[in-house]
Amino acid sequence: MASNRCVVYLEPGKVEVETIEYPRLELAVQHRKCDHGVIVRTIATNICGSDQHMVRGRTTAPKGQTLGHEITGEVIEAGRDVEFIKVGDIVSVPFNIACGRCQMCKSGNTGVCLNVNPARPGAAYGYVDMGGWVGGQANYVMVPYADWNLLKFPDKDQAMEKIRDLTMLSDIFPTGYHGAFTAGVRTGSTVYVAGAGPVGLACAASSQLLGAAVVIVGDMNPERLAQARSFGCETIDLRNKADLPDMLTQIVGEPVVDAAIDCVGFEARGHGQGASEAPATVLNDVMSITRVAGRVGIPGLYVTGDPGGIDENAKTGQLSVKMGLGWAKSLTFTTGQTPVMRYHRQLMMAILHDKIQIAKAVNATIISLDDAPKGYVDFDKGAAKKFVINPNGLIK
Amino acid sequence: MASNRCVVYLEPGKVEVETIEYPRLELAVQHRKCDHGVIVRTIATNICGSDQHMVRGRTTAPKGQTLGHEITGEVIEAGRDVEFIKVGDIVSVPFNIACGRCQMCKSGNTGVCLNVNPARPGAAYGYVDMGGWVGGQANYVMVPYADWNLLKFPDKDQAMEKIRDLTMLSDIFPTGYHGAFTAGVRTGSTVYVAGAGPVGLACAASSQLLGAAVVIVGDMNPERLAQARSFGCETIDLRNKADLPDMLTQIVGEPVVDAAIDCVGFEARGHGQGASEAPATVLNDVMSITRVAGRVGIPGLYVTGDPGGIDENAKTGQLSVKMGLGWAKSLTFTTGQTPVMRYHRQLMMAILHDKIQIAKAVNATIISLDDAPKGYVDFDKGAAKKFVINPNGLIK
Amino acid sequence: MASNRCVVYLEPGKVEVETIEYPRLELAVQHRKCDHGVIVRTIATNICGSDQHMVRGRTTAPKGQTLGHEITGEVIEAGRDVEFIKVGDIVSVPFNIACGRCQMCKSGNTGVCLNVNPARPGAAYGYVDMGGWVGGQANYVMVPYADWNLLKFPDKDQAMEKIRDLTMLSDIFPTGYHGAFTAGVRTGSTVYVAGAGPVGLACAASSQLLGAAVVIVGDMNPERLAQARSFGCETIDLRNKADLPDMLTQIVGEPVVDAAIDCVGFEARGHGQGASEAPATVLNDVMSITRVAGRVGIPGLYVTGDPGGIDENAKTGQLSVKMGLGWAKSLTFTTGQTPVMRYHRQLMMAILHDKIQIAKAVNATIISLDDAPKGYVDFDKGAAKKFVINPNGLIK
Amino acid sequence: MASNRCVVYLEPGKVEVETIEYPRLELAVQHRKCDHGVIVRTIATNICGSDQHMVRGRTTAPKGQTLGHEITGEVIEAGRDVEFIKVGDIVSVPFNIACGRCQMCKSGNTGVCLNVNPARPGAAYGYVDMGGWVGGQANYVMVPYADWNLLKFPDKDQAMEKIRDLTMLSDIFPTGYHGAFTAGVRTGSTVYVAGAGPVGLACAASSQLLGAAVVIVGDMNPERLAQARSFGCETIDLRNKADLPDMLTQIVGEPVVDAAIDCVGFEARGHGQGASEAPATVLNDVMSITRVAGRVGIPGLYVTGDPGGIDENAKTGQLSVKMGLGWAKSLTFTTGQTPVMRYHRQLMMAILHDKIQIAKAVNATIISLDDAPKGYVDFDKGAAKKFVINPNGLIK
Repeated sequence: MASNRCVVYLEPGKVEVETIEYPRLELAVQHRKCDHGVIVRTIATNICGSDQHMVRGRTTAPKGQTLGHEITGEVIEAGRDVEFIKVGDIVSVPFNIACGRCQMCKSGNTGVCLNVNPARPGAAYGYVDMGGWVGGQANYVMVPYADWNLLKFPDKDQAMEKIRDLTMLSDIFPTGYHGAFTAGVRTGSTVYVAGAGPVGLACAASSQLLGAAVVIVGDMNPERLAQARSFGCETIDLRNKADLPDMLTQIVGEPVVDAAIDCVGFEARGHGQGASEAPATVLNDVMSITRVAGRVGIPGLYVTGDPGGIDENAKTGQLSVKMGLGWAKSLTFTTGQTPVMRYHRQLMMAILHDKIQIAKAVNATIISLDDAPKGYVDFDKGAAKKFVINPNGLIK
Repeated sequence: MASNRCVVYLEPGKVEVETIEYPRLELAVQHRKCDHGVIVRTIATNICGSDQHMVRGRTTAPKGQTLGHEITGEVIEAGRDVEFIKVGDIVSVPFNIACGRCQMCKSGNTGVCLNVNPARPGAAYGYVDMGGWVGGQANYVMVPYADWNLLKFPDKDQAMEKIRDLTMLSDIFPTGYHGAFTAGVRTGSTVYVAGAGPVGLACAASSQLLGAAVVIVGDMNPERLAQARSFGCETIDLRNKADLPDMLTQIVGEPVVDAAIDCVGFEARGHGQGASEAPATVLNDVMSITRVAGRVGIPGLYVTGDPGGIDENAKTGQLSVKMGLGWAKSLTFTTGQTPVMRYHRQLMMAILHDKIQIAKAVNATIISLDDAPKGYVDFDKGAAKKFVINPNGLIK
Repeated sequence: MASNRCVVYLEPGKVEVETIEYPRLELAVQHRKCDHGVIVRTIATNICGSDQHMVRGRTTAPKGQTLGHEITGEVIEAGRDVEFIKVGDIVSVPFNIACGRCQMCKSGNTGVCLNVNPARPGAAYGYVDMGGWVGGQANYVMVPYADWNLLKFPDKDQAMEKIRDLTMLSDIFPTGYHGAFTAGVRTGSTVYVAGAGPVGLACAASSQLLGAAVVIVGDMNPERLAQARSFGCETIDLRNKADLPDMLTQIVGEPVVDAAIDCVGFEARGHGQGASEAPATVLNDVMSITRVAGRVGIPGLYVTGDPGGIDENAKTGQLSVKMGLGWAKSLTFTTGQTPVMRYHRQLMMAILHDKIQIAKAVNATIISLDDAPKGYVDFDKGAAKKFVINPNGLIK
Repeated sequence: MASNRCVVYLEPGKVEVETIEYPRLELAVQHRKCDHGVIVRTIATNICGSDQHMVRGRTTAPKGQTLGHEITGEVIEAGRDVEFIKVGDIVSVPFNIACGRCQMCKSGNTGVCLNVNPARPGAAYGYVDMGGWVGGQANYVMVPYADWNLLKFPDKDQAMEKIRDLTMLSDIFPTGYHGAFTAGVRTGSTVYVAGAGPVGLACAASSQLLGAAVVIVGDMNPERLAQARSFGCETIDLRNKADLPDMLTQIVGEPVVDAAIDCVGFEARGHGQGASEAPATVLNDVMSITRVAGRVGIPGLYVTGDPGGIDENAKTGQLSVKMGLGWAKSLTFTTGQTPVMRYHRQLMMAILHDKIQIAKAVNATIISLDDAPKGYVDFDKGAAKKFVINPNGLIK
C-alpha cells in the first residue's frame, strides 16, 4: 500500500505536509462503510481561499485538520457498489460531498446534502465542521458515493492536456459561475465583481462566458487587478478615495450595473488604503450599485462562527446589513455553497471546446506537495496566483 | 365639480379628513400633464399597515401628506390619450404607479418604475417619498397611465357584489401572494408566516391558494391569531416563552418549514411578553426556521430612513442580520414592493370564481370616510380588521 | 419463499393471473445484480390506461408480458447496498425506474434515465420495450436503486389509512399534475382537460390544487363526465354536435382557456357520436382552444410503434398536426413520461394534510388480484373507476 | 412633405419600388388615430426570409402589399402623446407591433399583442394578415405606440458606426437568439441549427454568444455553409447522402446534440440533391437528433394558409409530425414569432460592447432602395447575404 502524505493545519499561519493513513472505503470519524466510494490518486489539488480562513485561525479548525477539497485524479480502486465509474477513469471531484439519495440531492442542492454530515446539512473534504472527511491535498483520497459525485472526463489524454483548466471544475470555476449565474448575468449585462482573488477572477471569466457586455472587477490588490485586466476586465482600485458609484459611472456611464457579485465574504475590509476589517462592507457595496430589481450573487463565504470577528456580533456571523436599501431597490439575494454538480458538466464542455481559458484567468501555478506550505504563505500575502498542487508528479 | 375630501396626516398619531382639490389630469408636484390618466370615483379604499408607519411618525412624511394607496373605483373621466379604459369601467388601481414604457415596466418590475418619481425608482399614491402623487382615501383620485395601470373588472354588478374581496387586489392580496410565491410556496409546502396583520393573513390565505399543506402564523396579538385560525391556519403565540423551532416541531414534526415569509418588516419586536423593538428579529427568525436551500419572502417593509429607529444604524435601515446562518443554509431572499400587476389579474379570477375568501380572511370591515381617523386608531391598537373606507357610500 | 402471482398479458383483450418467480435482487433479462434493490410486498397496485394499450394489442407486447407499474408496498428485504430505506418502510414506487447516477437523473429527468433500459432511455415495471423489468400487479416485486427511487411514507398507520389516495402517487396523480403544471396552470387559470379517464380526472383535480379558477373536462363518456362533475369540474360532452370553442364560450365567456392538457393520447377519436379513431384530433383541439402564448401539456401517451394505427403514418407515430396554427399562436408544448420523482413528495404532503381527495376524484375501487382480469375488461369498457388491486389483502 | 417610396409586392416573383403616401399618425386601414406614434426616417431596412414567402406567392398577400418589417431609423416627428421618445432619437423598431397595454404585452408576449390586428393576435409592418400596417422598406414609416415599441440607441455617432450590426436588432438577431434561447442553449451546449439562411446564421452566432461548446449548421447551400464556417461553426452539407445522426457523430462523438433549432420552417425540402419540398422534414429531423428531455426551438415560420402547399393538409398548415418520437424522448417545443422586445436591449449591449459581430455573421450587404427588387431576386436564389436597404443614403 502506497504511502500517503497530506497538507495538515497546525496552528494559525502554519500548515505542514504529514504522512497520513492510506484511505480506506469507509468514513473514519463515523466508522461508516463506503462501498459506494472509490480511491482516487490525486493528479491536481488546489489551495482555496476558504482554506485560508482555517489557516488564518478564523474558524474552529483543530490542530491536525487535514486540508484540501479541490481534487482531480484517477480512480485506482472502486468499492463493490460502484457501477458506472471505473478504475482508470480521470475524474473531477466536486468539493461538496453528496449522497445522491436525499431530498436535497434530488432537487439539485448538493451543497446541503442531508446524509453526509451529522452536524448539519452539507459536507466537504478536509474542512472543519464539514463532516470529518479526510482532505485531498494528498497523494490519495477516498471519494464516497462515487457514481453520483464524480464527473468523468471523456478522454484521458485530452484531460491531461487540459488539466490546468479542468482542475478548476472541482470548486472555483463552478463557484464563480454560480455567483454570476445567480446574480442574473446574461447576454449584454454590465457586471461588477467584488474581489479579484481566484473566485472573483473565475466569476469575472464566467461572466464573460455568460455574455456580459462589460465586466468590472474591484479589489485593493494591484497585482490581482492586473490579472483581471489580462483577460479583458475593467478594474477599479478600491484603495483610491473615489466613490464606487462614481468610478462605475466613468466606465459604464451610470452609477449602477445590471448584476453584482460578492466574491469576498466575511473577511472584507473597508475601502481606502489601510482600511480595517468591516465584514458587511462588500455586501453593502454590491447592494448599493446593483440596478433596482436586480439580483445579488454571494459566493463569498459568510460563517456562523468566527473566533477572530471584529465584535461579538461578527463572531456569530451577525452583520450590519443595509436591509432598508436592499428592500427599497427590490433586490434578490442568493447565498451558500455552490452546488458544483449543477454546473460542472457544462463547464467541462466549455473547457474542452476552448470556450474559456480559466487556468490563465486565475493564473494557475503548479507546485509540488512539499511546496504547499509555501503556497499557503504566498497566497495569504495576496499573490495573484491559483496554486495547483501536483502531489504525484503526474502533471508535467 | 364635486367636492373632494381626503384623509390627511397631521402629526404622529393624528390624521383627519380634509377637503382637497378635485383631481386634474396632471401631476401637481411636477406640473406634468397626464392625458394618459383618468379620474376615478372611489368605491373602496383601504387603510394599509404601511400607512401606519407614516402615522406613527416612523417616516419623514410632512404635515399635510394625503393618504391612501389601496384604491378601487369607477372611471368617470378619461384623458384624451386613454384608448382602452372607458368611462364607466370599474377598476382596481395597483398601489404602485408605473409608466408602462420604461425598462422596468417592460420586464414586469412595476414596483420600481423609472419614470414616475424623480427621487428614485418606484411610486405610490399618497405616500412620502413616493413621487408626490395625491392619496386615494378620498372621494376622487387621478390615476396616470390608465391603460397600463388599471385592471378592469369584467362585469359591474358582479364587481359590486364582490367588492369587499376585489378591493384587496390593489395591494394586500398581491402583496401577501408575492411573499408566499417568492418564498417558493407550492403544492404540499409547510409554511410559516411571521405576522398576523392584514398582509400576514393575506399571505397565509395565499399560501393555502398555492396549495400549502400546512400554514402556520406567528404573532403576539391573540385576536389576530384567532382570525388566522378562522380560515384554517395553525398559529403560534409568540408571547409564550417557548422556542419557535420547538413550537414548529409540535405542529409539523420538525423544527423547520419549507418556506417562510416575513410579513412584519422593520417595526418588529422581540418575542415574549413586553419585548421591545428589535428590527431584525423577524428576519433572523424566519431564516432560522427555513429549510436549507429554501427561499425567504420579505414583503414586510424595510426602510432607508426611520426617525424612530432604536439606534443610529436602524435609523438608516442598517440591521444586524444573521448572514452567516443564511449563507450556511444556502438561503435565497426576495425583497421589495410587490409588483401588483404581475398577480392582480389571476387573483381577480380566483376571487370571481370563489376560490378564495380574502375579505373574510383579513376581516374586511367597511367604514365611512369620516370614520377613517378612528379606523387608524383602532388598527394601530391591533384590531384584527382590515378597514375598507367607503367614501362615496357606494358599498351598501 | 412465498409464492408470487402476477397479472400477465396473453393476447389482445386477454390477461390472466399467473404464478411467476419470486423476485430476486437482480434484473432477470440482463442478469445484472441489483444489490441496490429491495423486495416490496405489494399493498396496492393499480391498473393504468397505458396498460390498456398493451392489452388492446396496440403495442408490440409479447405473450407473457408481466403487467403493473403503479406500485405501493412494504419493503421486506433490502439489498446489501441499500443505506437509507429500511425493511418495514411503507413506500411509493415511481413507475419510472431510474438509476440516480446518470446525467438525466441528476437533472430531474427520471423518465428518460440512461442506465435502466439498453434499448432506449427510460424504463418502467411490466411494460413492453421498457427495459424488461418484471411487473408489479403481483404479490411481490423487486425495485432497483431503492434509495433513489422510493418515497417513504412518514407513518405506517397513517399510510394505511390513506392508502387509497397514496397509491395514486406512483403514477396518475403526478402524471395528471405534470400535465397541468407544464401547461402553466396556476392561480386563477381557466383550464380545459381533454379526457375524463383516470389521468384526465387526476389532471383536473391537480388543476384545482394549483388554484385554477375553472376546470372544464371534455369526454364522450357520460359516466366519466359525471365523475368529473362530482368534484366541481365543468364538463363538455363531446358526443354533442356543438363546436368546442362555442361550448367553452358558454362556460368561460370566450372560446379559449389559459391552459389545456391532452390526457388522451394516440388512441383519440373524433368528436360526435360514432366518431372513428383520429389520432391527432385531441392534440389539434387543445391547440385550437389554448390562449395565444399558452402552453399545452401532453401527458397522454404517443408511441413510436402502433400495430393498430389507422394508416402507415399512424403506425409509426407520425400524426397530422396543425403546426401552422400552433406557430401562429406562439404555443409551447411539453411531452413525455412524467418524471414522478419531481412531484411525488409534495403531492404526498397534500394528501397527508387533506388538501386533495384524489382517490375520490378518480373513484378508486379496490379489487382482489383474482379480479384483475375483470377489472381490465370493465376499465376497457369505460367504467368511471380507477381499479386498485389488493394482492395481499392488506387493504381492509 | 417629402416623397416616400416603398418596395411593393406585385405578383409571384415580382416586387417594385413605388411612391406611396407619406406616413401620417394614423392607421390607414382602420382610420385609427395614432397620436402615440412617431414618423421614422429610415436609416436601414432589411429584406427578410419571411418577405420571400409572400414574394414567392406562398401567402395570400394581395398585389400592392407594401413590404418591410425590419426597420431602423431616426425619429423626425412625434405624436402629442409620445412622452419619452424624442425627435432626433436613433431607434430600432421591433418587427412586431405591440400596444403595451394588453394582457399579452404586460406578460412580455409582444408577438401576440391583442390590440393591433383586428383579425388575430399579433401584427407587423408590411405583412399580409398582420394588421394592415404600412411596410418600412421605404423612406419613411409610421411606428405606433412609440414609447413602448422603440429601442433608443444611447449615442447617435456610435449608432451610425455600428449600424450594420444594429439593424439586425429589429428582427433576425432576436429571432435567431430566441430560437437558441428557447432551445435551452447555454454554456457548454452542443447545438444543431437547421438552415443557414440569415436567421440560421443569426441563431448560430447567438448560440456562440450563449456559450455553446459546438455549433453545427446544416443546409444544402454550399455558399451559405461557407458563411457559417467563416465565424467558427461546424457545417453539414445535407445534399450528401449520409445520415444526419452519423454526421453529427463525426463531429461531437454521439448522434445527438443538447439543443436543436429549426430555422427553416414550412418551405422545407427533403435531404439529398434534388429533394423536393417536404414541409415537416426539418422539424422531424431536429426532433430525432435532440437529446432526450431536450427542448426544440422553432423560429422558422409555419403558416395556417399556404396556397402553394404540397397537399391539402399542407395548404392549411397541417403537417405530418413524428409525435410518437417526440413524446418518447420527452421533448419540449417552442413556436411562434419572436417577442423582439424581450431581447433587443441586451443584444444591443452585446453589439455596442463588441461581444458579437452579427453583421459579419450574416454577411450584411448594403444596397440602395432602387436595388431592392434585385436584392429580392438574389436572396431568393440563395445568396449568402443579408440585404440591408439604405433608402435615404444615410449609411455611408
